[in-house]
Amino acid sequence: MTAWQRLTLFSFPYYEDNRAAYTENLTNYHTFRVSGYDATLGYVKNSVVEKFPWPKEYWNIDAQLRTVTLITPAGADPALRSKLIQESIGEAARQETFKVLKGWRNENYPVYAPGGEYIFEIERSAACLFGVVTYGAHMTGYVEDSTGLKLWIPRRAKNKQTYPGMLDNTVAGGMCTGEKPFECIVREAMEEASLPEDVVRASITARGCVTYTHVRDVRAGGETGLLQPEVEYVYDLKLDPSVIPTPGDSEVEEFMLLSVKDVQDALARKEFKPNCAVVLVDFFIRHGILTAETEPDYLDIVARLHRRLEYPTASHCVR
Amino acid sequence: MTAWQRLTLFSFPYYEDNRAAYTENLTNYHTFRVSGYDATLGYVKNSVVEKFPWPKEYWNIDAQLRTVTLITPAGADPALRSKLIQESIGEAARQETFKVLKGWRNENYPVYAPGGEYIFEIERSAACLFGVVTYGAHMTGYVEDSTGLKLWIPRRAKNKQTYPGMLDNTVAGGMCTGEKPFECIVREAMEEASLPEDVVRASITARGCVTYTHVRDVRAGGETGLLQPEVEYVYDLKLDPSVIPTPGDSEVEEFMLLSVKDVQDALARKEFKPNCAVVLVDFFIRHGILTAETEPDYLDIVARLHRRLEYPTASHCVR
Repeated sequence: MTAWQRLTLFSFPYYEDNRAAYTENLTNYHTFRVSGYDATLGYVKNSVVEKFPWPKEYWNIDAQLRTVTLITPAGADPALRSKLIQESIGEAARQETFKVLKGWRNENYPVYAPGGEYIFEIERSAACLFGVVTYGAHMTGYVEDSTGLKLWIPRRAKNKQTYPGMLDNTVAGGMCTGEKPFECIVREAMEEASLPEDVVRASITARGCVTYTHVRDVRAGGETGLLQPEVEYVYDLKLDPSVIPTPGDSEVEEFMLLSVKDVQDALARKEFKPNCAVVLVDFFIRHGILTAETEPDYLDIVARLHRRLEYPTASHCVR
Repeated sequence: MTAWQRLTLFSFPYYEDNRAAYTENLTNYHTFRVSGYDATLGYVKNSVVEKFPWPKEYWNIDAQLRTVTLITPAGADPALRSKLIQESIGEAARQETFKVLKGWRNENYPVYAPGGEYIFEIERSAACLFGVVTYGAHMTGYVEDSTGLKLWIPRRAKNKQTYPGMLDNTVAGGMCTGEKPFECIVREAMEEASLPEDVVRASITARGCVTYTHVRDVRAGGETGLLQPEVEYVYDLKLDPSVIPTPGDSEVEEFMLLSVKDVQDALARKEFKPNCAVVLVDFFIRHGILTAETEPDYLDIVARLHRRLEYPTASHCVR
């Protein structure tokens, strides 16, 4: 476990480790709530609460209870909530209140209430201001031959808005409103890596998910200390050596076929985007490369890769 | 997810779900401590604390703080602590204080302090009285052909002390003091399933671990409500169809090669030993059989399979 990987998995404290420290840390945040739902949907840093130009008509800020609540009329639906939140964020963007909103994406991420009920969507670049859970799908493409296992690793384009030039998972994408993880990863595989849909569908396997709370630091750009609770559905794709991923859009600069040792060295050199490093650690554990006998913090890492999040999460069940 | 599987994964509450309920539940237990270490090593049910014939020379019971502390002289080592605990448990067994001690195993389980330091061992049948973390290794043997994936499932001997006649993982065993997970599973594969060491070493792969807190109920026999925090290292072994596991000792009655559907049906009928059901759920997730699109509680289950335990745990690193 390198210091780099620790940064994401070890950045937000656990109640189990130190009850007082966990509780103390939360005093730096307001809980984000929506009227009609008895749930904490996210944590908003106190400094964000202070600067945000909250429209008073539909936001209630309680400094005592440290809550930020979107107040909606009875009968509000996801469209109305999304509109009110979009207006609020739009105004903050116009006033240039937050650096993170300079990276406006025009992509909407869904937010869920207890029971997996979809209740609104939020502009991607603003999700970290509210500390809501976001969802993605990450796939590791690899080949295996007599010389061992090799992974297809892309380098992000130098002009990408976030983490430019860093290494990434073979295919990865955020899940917008309405998307299911499997269809998301199949689509991204074609768009980002030019992997034909029939090849992907024939060989891809769902392998679980990783969940953690990332605390944004300087590497992400913009305000620091913002919370990003993330769910990444993980997939493996064992590829025939004849199949070569190639950049399909402007997101990726190149694909390299790296040995496990090469990937581990790049991880140690902090060349991977942080949440992609997390997915690779999970891959190494699932493939018997990182084991209880080789990693002193094995049990700690396995648990931290699957944090039980403090927020309601999605159900993507289609049955 | 069947009600059966929920019993183990869903039996001990999470702080994240309901802070008050979590804290309230803990008032039913004393924390188990050892002098010299600032850590909760386990939880002892209040009714156990009341009945246990604690030798006053080296136990301190604080009803106010709800602590049970083994008091040892400065310079105490694992051998001394183990001896004192063994004496105490032996006396309780002679007095027939607890039903669970009727299943005396003469096997010792290790207990660790923060940092993975081994500090004493405890008779296996008494581990649940103290609520200390125990460790095991579970392996799923399977074959894969054009008709799909099939799992080798054993039925436990009818005269086995615990969970007689129930279904189990292909190979599984508790880890005694000094054992490492990989060597444990290789040994058990020969003893329980007559799988040759060379076959196992050539094809077995470490796949991570599952961690959870099992609350003992009537099925386990003996006192109920005792806590069993468990770490199970999980392994997969893809077998050639020509390799047939056969009972190697008196623990297993027979091995059956079952389809995924057969295993799922047996899980629904509650035929599996509870912690083996947990390992199978993890297997189904890792093999893309249980997915986000087919299981409404997918995220909840994945996190619960990897509980961050409230206690210090082992490091089995040999480097």
